[in-house]
Amino acid sequence: MLSKSEVKYIQSLHHKKFRDEEGAFIAEGNKVVMELLQSGQFVCEQLIGEQQWFQENEVLIKKHFAGTFQEVKDFELQKISALSTSSQTLAVFKKTQKKEIVVKGRITLLLDTIQDPGNLGTIIRIADWFGIAAIICSADTVDQYNPKVVQSTMGSLARVNILYTDLLKWTAANATIKIYTAALHGKNVSELKGLKEGFIVIGNESKGISAELLQLATEKITIPKIGNAESLNAAVATGIILSHLQ
Amino acid sequence: MLSKSEVKYIQSLHHKKFRDEEGAFIAEGNKVVMELLQSGQFVCEQLIGEQQWFQENEVLIKKHFAGTFQEVKDFELQKISALSTSSQTLAVFKKTQKKEIVVKGRITLLLDTIQDPGNLGTIIRIADWFGIAAIICSADTVDQYNPKVVQSTMGSLARVNILYTDLLKWTAANATIKIYTAALHGKNVSELKGLKEGFIVIGNESKGISAELLQLATEKITIPKIGNAESLNAAVATGIILSHLQ
Repeated sequence: MLSKSEVKYIQSLHHKKFRDEEGAFIAEGNKVVMELLQSGQFVCEQLIGEQQWFQENEVLIKKHFAGTFQEVKDFELQKISALSTSSQTLAVFKKTQKKEIVVKGRITLLLDTIQDPGNLGTIIRIADWFGIAAIICSADTVDQYNPKVVQSTMGSLARVNILYTDLLKWTAANATIKIYTAALHGKNVSELKGLKEGFIVIGNESKGISAELLQLATEKITIPKIGNAESLNAAVATGIILSHLQ
Repeated sequence: MLSKSEVKYIQSLHHKKFRDEEGAFIAEGNKVVMELLQSGQFVCEQLIGEQQWFQENEVLIKKHFAGTFQEVKDFELQKISALSTSSQTLAVFKKTQKKEIVVKGRITLLLDTIQDPGNLGTIIRIADWFGIAAIICSADTVDQYNPKVVQSTMGSLARVNILYTDLLKWTAANATIKIYTAALHGKNVSELKGLKEGFIVIGNESKGISAELLQLATEKITIPKIGNAESLNAAVATGIILSHLQ
């Protein structure tokens, strides 16, 4: 049974303001919680779940978590969950200072105002698949520790370095790195094959990339359209572009 | 103001059982409603929305909708909406019998038990982008008329032919068409360049493709992994595969 103040604390972490103040975030569901625990990237403050879940994963949990497991009933999990369907487990992790970001000789993703948590989470997972070490997000991109983002990264959050900053200042400070923007018209993405260094910029779901950043583009790249859809989902476009670099 | 029975009718269309019985479905939001209206693919039974939305789109609406627009307040829209955030408009459309499906000389998508509505909607949008005319779904794939699917197709629902059937029977009945399954190990997706005919099979989000269907595969294809993510999202994988055929 969770105390009232514990419930209140965890519910507060649904909101960015309190995640920033506390330096903590929540992760939900067996897959994500176990991946983050095992990664050793984030210190686990609190591990909460149903008894059955704990029993099924006891060996692995004890290997990676020295604290006390808190057993709760499903209705308690519903109360603290930030998702529409709560899972068998929820954990509170401390945010971490990730490693230094290296852009030289590497492909780096730049996200300009991605707002959908599912999209950001999926993009982090895609970056992890394609071995992209770092993602630079505009300051107004959705928070990487948003519970829905954490959920849709499927554990990749532990393996990709994510920085929030002003993208114009970032590109200015790394002026030797070429900038490639995803656009409706431009060079065919298949011509990027073999590219080893660069910033790949993905824009907002409805507004695209900001005019200031577009002006800095070394090259506009496009995913050729054969049919009639107006656009591609931002995460899908990211996956397609990264798959063509190999 | 909507009558009680109108509210009840629209709410019933949140559920597949009633959509099947009534042969109707709902679409929400300016973008999707306007695209479906303009497509002429679906007869609009009821068009409901806020006065401001109607005024802003009056000319276009009157061109494509002969019925009576029903003005409502936002709290009424919330009551009938199937989405977590309701929009300025909601329409009821009649389902339609789509055109005959041609698989010869074409790339056709086969979806084996896709369950997430957002994934199916995004896949329909991707198919529309790449000019794929038809998607064959296993009978247990989420309903194409699910409100969240309709929402995430962004209007592409009107342009892609979708059939629900037994995939084993379907492939048996079209035995001359080669079957390509997305897999963790197989031929590099980039080697499919130029492919003009085939069934591309995308599997369930967690279980992948059923064993029976895998056995029928002419070729297993893979998206090479460089990093550590365990898998790619089903819609992202679909987009990557289709982008490499060109």
